Amino acid sequence: MNVAFINPFIESTLQSLEMMANITAEKIGLTLKQDLITTYDISAIIGITGDTSGSIIVSFPAPLACRIAGNMIMEEIPEMNQSVEDAIGEIGNIVVGSARRLLVEDGFSLSISIPTVVVGKGHKISRSGDVPCIAIPFSTPYGEFEVNVGLKE
Amino acid sequence: MNVAFINPFIESTLQSLEMMANITAEKIGLTLKQDLITTYDISAIIGITGDTSGSIIVSFPAPLACRIAGNMIMEEIPEMNQSVEDAIGEIGNIVVGSARRLLVEDGFSLSISIPTVVVGKGHKISRSGDVPCIAIPFSTPYGEFEVNVGLKE
Repeated sequence: MNVAFINPFIESTLQSLEMMANITAEKIGLTLKQDLITTYDISAIIGITGDTSGSIIVSFPAPLACRIAGNMIMEEIPEMNQSVEDAIGEIGNIVVGSARRLLVEDGFSLSISIPTVVVGKGHKISRSGDVPCIAIPFSTPYGEFEVNVGLKE
Repeated sequence: MNVAFINPFIESTLQSLEMMANITAEKIGLTLKQDLITTYDISAIIGITGDTSGSIIVSFPAPLACRIAGNMIMEEIPEMNQSVEDAIGEIGNIVVGSARRLLVEDGFSLSISIPTVVVGKGHKISRSGDVPCIAIPFSTPYGEFEVNVGLKE
């Protein structure tokens, strides 16, 4: 995978969480996975087509997802509900939309699809085919989460 | 949603299962859902961008997924494993790829992303935003499955 694709997603994740949910996140790693297994509770999946093709998965544990959604609508949300699903879809959309804008400025032509949100304790997400996936874990004061960038050239 | 988008997915689903897995399916309904909940065990999600944007979700119960994968590689597969995930991703790709070809022939410009496969008993898939979703259930001799077409114009 072209490494030029990775930094825009890191930058847009940090900015989006800060801007939308007033949460300061920090990148704590970067791993190449051949097969992706996500064990968090809620994930937004956004497809990408154009000069590269693949998908971005932004996955959160439930408490952090509730905190993000609560901060976004300025209400306390004690447990997972439709508002949380919508908020995580929106965060996914903003993260990938902002990264797309950065990549378009760098000369890439890319389209992104509407987010699909998957909910389920221990759901597993894998990719068929041999698209490499870069997993980028982040920490926040309310728990860790992960952004997975899986793009082929 | 433009109904012209629906028939190509029905046609490609029937043809793909017959051709790839020698399984004859039959459409048994068609429902409009505002919020989508999928309760089958494995789903392939494929993003679509272009003249319309959204995602297609093809979701199977485990026994049917194993049967499809087994028929595709001509081996008995007793339980869910990586081959089944790959097979379902491939079926999703072929269903959406064939439907896309039909839609391109009809004058639409569309791109599709690589399938993402979600595994998990009772995983729930929802869409953020107000994209309507058409759920198309099918029956086969080995169980039912569902194709969900969620596209905005």
